[in-house]
Amino acid sequence: MPRYALLLEYDGAGFVGWQRQETGLSVQQVLEEAAARLTPRDPVAAVAAGRTDAGVHAEAQVAHLDLAREMEPRRLGEALNFHLGPHRVSVVKAARAAVEFHARFSAIGRAYRYDILDRPARPALLAGRVWHVHRRLDAAAMQAAAALLVGRHDFTSFRAVACQAASPVKTLDRLEVAREGDLVRIVAEARSFLHHQVRNLVGTLKLVGEGRWTPTDVAAALAARDRSAAGPTAPPEGLTLTAVRYAADPFA
Amino acid sequence: MPRYALLLEYDGAGFVGWQRQETGLSVQQVLEEAAARLTPRDPVAAVAAGRTDAGVHAEAQVAHLDLAREMEPRRLGEALNFHLGPHRVSVVKAARAAVEFHARFSAIGRAYRYDILDRPARPALLAGRVWHVHRRLDAAAMQAAAALLVGRHDFTSFRAVACQAASPVKTLDRLEVAREGDLVRIVAEARSFLHHQVRNLVGTLKLVGEGRWTPTDVAAALAARDRSAAGPTAPPEGLTLTAVRYAADPFA
Repeated sequence: MPRYALLLEYDGAGFVGWQRQETGLSVQQVLEEAAARLTPRDPVAAVAAGRTDAGVHAEAQVAHLDLAREMEPRRLGEALNFHLGPHRVSVVKAARAAVEFHARFSAIGRAYRYDILDRPARPALLAGRVWHVHRRLDAAAMQAAAALLVGRHDFTSFRAVACQAASPVKTLDRLEVAREGDLVRIVAEARSFLHHQVRNLVGTLKLVGEGRWTPTDVAAALAARDRSAAGPTAPPEGLTLTAVRYAADPFA
Repeated sequence: MPRYALLLEYDGAGFVGWQRQETGLSVQQVLEEAAARLTPRDPVAAVAAGRTDAGVHAEAQVAHLDLAREMEPRRLGEALNFHLGPHRVSVVKAARAAVEFHARFSAIGRAYRYDILDRPARPALLAGRVWHVHRRLDAAAMQAAAALLVGRHDFTSFRAVACQAASPVKTLDRLEVAREGDLVRIVAEARSFLHHQVRNLVGTLKLVGEGRWTPTDVAAALAARDRSAAGPTAPPEGLTLTAVRYAADPFA
């Protein structure tokens, strides 16, 4: 069966996350159901590069699926968007992929952005897209702390208890904090991340932004290799998957 | 009665526009009703710098209102946000204003941004915030045409038939088109605009972006001083009021 790679954009608000769950509608389910409309006798399974949590958005998720029929990729994208109907999921690009291509296992890099709106007034335009924090954060202090987390470390302190990764050792290639007006934007890049790693890093950096922790406290939390030594998990709505990298661009 | 200036952010999607209408909910109505909760025996009237149309958003609308009681501005902002409840309107700043301050008549500049998403796939994250155009536009040609519109002109060709301005002559201080990925962003600045002027300018520039018009055609449309000589009105959802300027910043 021909394999196709898909570049997906979605608003995480209405979904239980990427992965199918008994508890509600997932991005995977609505995509698979849209694809199954194209091959009514054959169910379709979709695999994504990053299994985003409930409420987490994607500007550029990558998924692959195998179809029981050949379709011109552009027509496939149009047909999927048609059958996705009112759901806030869009197939931005579609391409024919080699059978060796695997959206998750072929990926060599993921990038996320986490946005914090730090002002007293609640968001109107960015509602559901940011973590709203009422008091101004010290973005420069957060950046100083972030710099201490970049590199190859045992990230047990920032790993969800339910995380199924074989090892807590990961290389964080980039973790940068920058202010843009009332937004504090945090960019994280790595080959792969532990479950909740970005949200746990952000929840800890926020303590620094509030002046409750120093960058040194963050380094100590990392060294403790104990989830309870780090800060709380930041809420999902501020997180967006912004890019997935492969050795060769599947959409080139 | 003390006068207050308010900096407002709103998502235009759920509203019939700034101004009260019989046909549905306006930003003015929900703001006035929230303010009236603070002075139950006195109705409150709010005046805005720009009377945005249905579906048009604001990152920084300015309004003023007179209250029958003194309130610390920050508390006023918090109280209004509380009473605005689920509506996608937020009071970002509130300040005490002089009785001479008038949100509309004291304004000496308005800035708008119009966003066009020009890609085949429909928007998921930017749904309701952009004009979705399926084919790639030539942003450089649009910018060349925009440059011909800057300055003091009779903008009759870009003025809604219902426009109530005394004169069609306006000075367009800035009209710039720039591409950011799949977005074509158009920024317009002037002391004031005619009704639908930005949307009519954008609808005309889009013809240039599609290659159907040349920049010279746009100059001819301007010279014609005839609404039917210019392009169609761009839809409201791509338009955002981004700034209002005053001789002295009311929130300084």
